[in-house]
Amino acid sequence: MNLASFPRIAIVGSGAIGGLYGALLARAGHDVRFLLRSDLEQVRRSGLRIDLPRGEGFTLPDVQAYGATADIGPVDLVLVGLKATANDALAAMLKPLLHEHTLVVNLQNGLGVDEPVVAAAGVARSAGGLCFVCSNRIAPGHISCTLTGMLAFANVERPADDRLRAVANLFADTPIKTTTHDSLTEARWRKLVWNIPFNGLAIAAGGLTTSELLASPTLTDELRALMQEVLQGARSQGVEIPANVVESNIDQTRRMEGYKPSSLIDYLAGNPVEVEPIWGEPLRRARAAGVELPRLALLYALLRQLV
Amino acid sequence: MNLASFPRIAIVGSGAIGGLYGALLARAGHDVRFLLRSDLEQVRRSGLRIDLPRGEGFTLPDVQAYGATADIGPVDLVLVGLKATANDALAAMLKPLLHEHTLVVNLQNGLGVDEPVVAAAGVARSAGGLCFVCSNRIAPGHISCTLTGMLAFANVERPADDRLRAVANLFADTPIKTTTHDSLTEARWRKLVWNIPFNGLAIAAGGLTTSELLASPTLTDELRALMQEVLQGARSQGVEIPANVVESNIDQTRRMEGYKPSSLIDYLAGNPVEVEPIWGEPLRRARAAGVELPRLALLYALLRQLV
Repeated sequence: MNLASFPRIAIVGSGAIGGLYGALLARAGHDVRFLLRSDLEQVRRSGLRIDLPRGEGFTLPDVQAYGATADIGPVDLVLVGLKATANDALAAMLKPLLHEHTLVVNLQNGLGVDEPVVAAAGVARSAGGLCFVCSNRIAPGHISCTLTGMLAFANVERPADDRLRAVANLFADTPIKTTTHDSLTEARWRKLVWNIPFNGLAIAAGGLTTSELLASPTLTDELRALMQEVLQGARSQGVEIPANVVESNIDQTRRMEGYKPSSLIDYLAGNPVEVEPIWGEPLRRARAAGVELPRLALLYALLRQLV
Repeated sequence: MNLASFPRIAIVGSGAIGGLYGALLARAGHDVRFLLRSDLEQVRRSGLRIDLPRGEGFTLPDVQAYGATADIGPVDLVLVGLKATANDALAAMLKPLLHEHTLVVNLQNGLGVDEPVVAAAGVARSAGGLCFVCSNRIAPGHISCTLTGMLAFANVERPADDRLRAVANLFADTPIKTTTHDSLTEARWRKLVWNIPFNGLAIAAGGLTTSELLASPTLTDELRALMQEVLQGARSQGVEIPANVVESNIDQTRRMEGYKPSSLIDYLAGNPVEVEPIWGEPLRRARAAGVELPRLALLYALLRQLV
């Protein structure tokens, strides 16, 4: 068997992220099986509707939609699109999907999210995916993606390899750009440099879009100061991120149309927010290494209370 | 003329604080003239109703109620109970109340609030009062005081003197305990050690009472850390406050029944919150002395946005 081919793909958690990537892979001709919960009947009846930027989009009419991973059975690639707040159940959910060479790619944000995947699949079958994308589930079975962006893959605790590059290449016939990294830890910290300040202040400042945050010089200074703290936190874990990422994050976000960070969307919808992986775990890891991150500590305490 | 006697007293801003103290002094036989705005007609018609702890209370039926300081004319003592958010107009409002020996006691919280009083009255006629009290205006002309507490006086930029002690003694026939301090700056910083964390987190954490804040170990750690920052800020201004104030603030607040800090009450009522004197000015003064207070900086940025 060619370890770098993925005849069967399962999407665990077919919401804004998993549903988007799964539908794009299915449209490109892959055998994709979707695990759904609340949208299961709707998707079986009417398929998955995907809106893409510039008025493009498509409906996937015949979706292989499942209500349990045991009904899907073993697959070659799993993309985990569940919220990390559901991770208590993740290891058990993954088990029926695994064969000897299954690769599980966890698309969740933050730190401490790979442990349940490793618990189920072991390090050699575990990877992560960093999603730089704007995608929302706007109705049952209906996902709106306003920025296809970039999907970056990295193996858990080992450099990129041919199998990981093959996962990235699966997206060749989709609008999603992909890349691979040699360090998942570094990639996750790099993503947190943006997520910790923008997602956090968007909620704590009362429900602000990125452009509303950046319209306040005082809040923009705090975005910068929080990013500096994340760089310190990364450094405490042996991850060196160049300081110019702070201004480039500010500049790039300023150039984009204002939008609600994903955690704010979850918060406003009354859904669970990934407080522990995005804010709690980075804070605890830095603290365990003797590094205090005071703004992050305050922000985490507020978010725990608010969400 | 005996400079330590105050035949005529004016209350500028007769809300929860000014109205309470003014009514207690009037009940004790002093000549007290009240400046009112929204409650003027109600108070002229029905007097001032004051509820005190343990079911006590009284109505002051014939209130000397005025709509403008020019109608009050010169007095011997002014108690300023206005919100600091109205301070742009304060100096002009005070002018008609002043004669050569008038003492103006500013009951506002925070830093930077004495400047308009000094601008109108000069340093020699300016003092401050620190109100440790639980009092709310619950209806027009109706004030509910659930803790009479303590009122501490200090002169602006000079030690306590006989005249200041005479102000404190005015309250002898009221339930208000009084004291005097030699440094207004130190007294204001000491009060901020409580106000900055409790008033701030009560708002930023979504509208919590003191007991709800203290029910969360994570938020309680942040209350402590913010208090430590205020101690650092005070030190940057030459004010040394013993570190045991942190735990004694926590313990004392825990022993009290949970209540909404005054800024939270203002916030929930849609009234202006004194963000600049309580959070902004202490932060700026510390920063000007080269001391960064990261949690306070984040909290200030959030409060500016939220209120």
